[in-house]
Amino acid sequence: MSISSNYNMVSDEVLTAFKQICGSENVITSQKDLEPFAHDETEDLKYYPEVVLLPSTRQQISEILILCNTNLIPVTTRGAGTGLSGGALPIMGGVVLSMQKFDKIIDIDLKNLQATVETGVITQVFQEEVAKHGLFYPPDPSSRGACFMGGNIAENAGGPKAAKYGVTKDFILNLEVVLATGEIIWTGSNTLKNATGYNLTQLIIGSEGTLAIVTKAVIKLIPLPMHSLVMLAPFTSATKACEAVSAIYRAGITPSCLEFMEKNALKWASDYLNIPLNISHEIEAHLLIEVDGNHLETLFADCEKINEVLSQFEVEDILFADTAEQKDALWKLRRNIAHAVKSKSIYKEEDTVVPRAFLPQLLSKVKEVGVNYGFESVCYGHAGDGNLHINIVKGDLDDETWNSTINHGISEIFAFVKSLKGTISGEHGIGLVQKKYMPIIFSEFEMNLMKGIKKVFDPNSILNPGKIFPD
Amino acid sequence: MSISSNYNMVSDEVLTAFKQICGSENVITSQKDLEPFAHDETEDLKYYPEVVLLPSTRQQISEILILCNTNLIPVTTRGAGTGLSGGALPIMGGVVLSMQKFDKIIDIDLKNLQATVETGVITQVFQEEVAKHGLFYPPDPSSRGACFMGGNIAENAGGPKAAKYGVTKDFILNLEVVLATGEIIWTGSNTLKNATGYNLTQLIIGSEGTLAIVTKAVIKLIPLPMHSLVMLAPFTSATKACEAVSAIYRAGITPSCLEFMEKNALKWASDYLNIPLNISHEIEAHLLIEVDGNHLETLFADCEKINEVLSQFEVEDILFADTAEQKDALWKLRRNIAHAVKSKSIYKEEDTVVPRAFLPQLLSKVKEVGVNYGFESVCYGHAGDGNLHINIVKGDLDDETWNSTINHGISEIFAFVKSLKGTISGEHGIGLVQKKYMPIIFSEFEMNLMKGIKKVFDPNSILNPGKIFPD
Repeated sequence: MSISSNYNMVSDEVLTAFKQICGSENVITSQKDLEPFAHDETEDLKYYPEVVLLPSTRQQISEILILCNTNLIPVTTRGAGTGLSGGALPIMGGVVLSMQKFDKIIDIDLKNLQATVETGVITQVFQEEVAKHGLFYPPDPSSRGACFMGGNIAENAGGPKAAKYGVTKDFILNLEVVLATGEIIWTGSNTLKNATGYNLTQLIIGSEGTLAIVTKAVIKLIPLPMHSLVMLAPFTSATKACEAVSAIYRAGITPSCLEFMEKNALKWASDYLNIPLNISHEIEAHLLIEVDGNHLETLFADCEKINEVLSQFEVEDILFADTAEQKDALWKLRRNIAHAVKSKSIYKEEDTVVPRAFLPQLLSKVKEVGVNYGFESVCYGHAGDGNLHINIVKGDLDDETWNSTINHGISEIFAFVKSLKGTISGEHGIGLVQKKYMPIIFSEFEMNLMKGIKKVFDPNSILNPGKIFPD
Repeated sequence: MSISSNYNMVSDEVLTAFKQICGSENVITSQKDLEPFAHDETEDLKYYPEVVLLPSTRQQISEILILCNTNLIPVTTRGAGTGLSGGALPIMGGVVLSMQKFDKIIDIDLKNLQATVETGVITQVFQEEVAKHGLFYPPDPSSRGACFMGGNIAENAGGPKAAKYGVTKDFILNLEVVLATGEIIWTGSNTLKNATGYNLTQLIIGSEGTLAIVTKAVIKLIPLPMHSLVMLAPFTSATKACEAVSAIYRAGITPSCLEFMEKNALKWASDYLNIPLNISHEIEAHLLIEVDGNHLETLFADCEKINEVLSQFEVEDILFADTAEQKDALWKLRRNIAHAVKSKSIYKEEDTVVPRAFLPQLLSKVKEVGVNYGFESVCYGHAGDGNLHINIVKGDLDDETWNSTINHGISEIFAFVKSLKGTISGEHGIGLVQKKYMPIIFSEFEMNLMKGIKKVFDPNSILNPGKIFPD
């Protein structure tokens, strides 16, 4: 455990105060019990906190923060620990504040089509609950079966459905947050429109636990579409597959999902899940396309139009998922690519995003850099949003190459992304592992603006220190 | 002209420097030529600047701001002057910086469905230009024929189409801004997703020219829907009309527009425009409803469903607009309500917004407060968003009542709006005339957070001083 000299260790006195605030049973200090809170889903990183707290009210969080702020103890807020950029890792030691007891769906307001949740609610649990009322909360990161709504807010999470419906930020109306100094505020109003002061809600979303701790969220819901159709389109050229993406939108169709998968991504997922898929050897990539809506006949018309567009990009035989089982199997494959890659090798996952028509150029660049630096990559992602996940596989690379040389290749890819007016994270956040690349995207002046905002919210920099901004 | 003691007047030296930066012909100082820049569309307010500048490049703006920042001269950025909260009024004197020369649509990117504009482009001009390519920019404030994109960004403008498509903030991907200290930065990336650092783009949107001057915007476009259907539904009870609004959404329909108009709103617009409308005397209010999409048959099905819903709320004979002319006439009536009210009397326009199912309560409260304080009001607005414009008519009220007593009534309405988790501006902004009401919505701590952000961006507070925050 390393602790920066700017911060203090948790003293016995403070520990006693934590126990008074949360109850002893909600204060974890034994090495064994700290272990699950020492890592998330990011690579193979591990950082132990000194103590894990499991508060269950905003008032407790307020008291904890006042104590930590006074004593200069770092506080890293943790959702379900499914993050991919190391945002929940307590790299300065101190306190991990787990939101797992904030697990209540407080209200589903059927008249206003909105809901209020505590931020430790699991995304899929929330989605299934609102679906019972014919309502829909679209953001659906691959980890939705485990991740918390609060983590999704912290990282501005997306997922396949973002292609049509937008990301987390597009569904959050209002947030209850606790500031580093202990104040509890709401950031906005429960309305679809707001032109009253600065947009603190959108400032908190995506701020990765560095500005405040989010305890409640008011969420916009929409009517659940009644039907969806899914198709899997194989291409002999990955570039052509990427080119087809923007052509679909140009034809006036907005698919509810539009996913790109390089051959190995799908193949490895198929092996990993033991779901057999017949991919002929000349296929380089697939698009997984879903359309949704209330009128089946218009969806069929959309599919026909998509078919027509794809035929201009040398598509092979398209598989239409006829049954719910087939649809589920296809989505299961897509959602398990990351796990499949992880099961093969240590890997780094980059979360690049560009305007969608530039995907072919981005993919070519990745492969070119891979050749130059001697690494293998598997690419897939939310092509409808131009969001390409680049999985760089360690395989046989030695540690020196892996920990140093490869980073130069990544920098090259990121600089190219920037030149395309894209950025280095679409939905995973910067957290720990991407912060060294921030200067590729932002000037020092721009980062200082952000740090200035941070200082307004968190004057002693106790909230998730060491994240987002390079050292 | 009043000028706060914190600021300096424009000296001859500074004036000479302005002429060197912009060219003499773009520096206005004569009283007569300053007049058009001394007011906007807010009530009958008038504040003269010392000088109006008409820069045409971001570099010129940067130099102007460095000069003003060094010399502590207030700078009020001005779009088309169509604002309804006094945001463009130079209440501290100093410089009005007009964006009227920033009138270029720089790029319409048909592959990525996005456009880049300078911020002095007129909203409707932009909409018509992208429509030529089958593309759609939905935000459509009533002033869209005159207002600038930059003004829409400053106030986070909405309009009828927000009911389905969202407001300005939902279509802005990236902004080029000039800071008070002269730096020119882009706030984000040209992508649909972004989880890279704090969301400066959303922070600038709606900040009413107090954080930075926006010189360019990258805008998300969507395919232009091919068809729309419009209907006008009369109700004998205004409350029932409001109740019908949330019932339409609950039935799974998302209209592209859903406008509420009290009887007098429509009647006055009909008189003002000389478009005859037969409104029988027992009618209290109308809903103007539009659905849009690419499949006419599904739109007809939606209309039938809406019809069915409305029939549960004592709707009278619904008028379906059969022709483009009829549709245009209905929208013209709607868009001219504000002008019609203005032609009748001095008035105050409040821009309340609540979760949409609370509209009936809000309307009742407005009428109750009107009775208690002796004022007449005409209400209309974007019911789909819960955004109710309350026009309080001066009529025969004496000046004392108008300038003081009425404000207590408005405070009562706003406190009620807050209790419904709504807010005091949905799309007009706070600017000058609403700032005294900010403490109803935000605590001092919350406003200090916002002021802290302001200080990070604009340390000497030269950008649009005296706005948003109460004195």
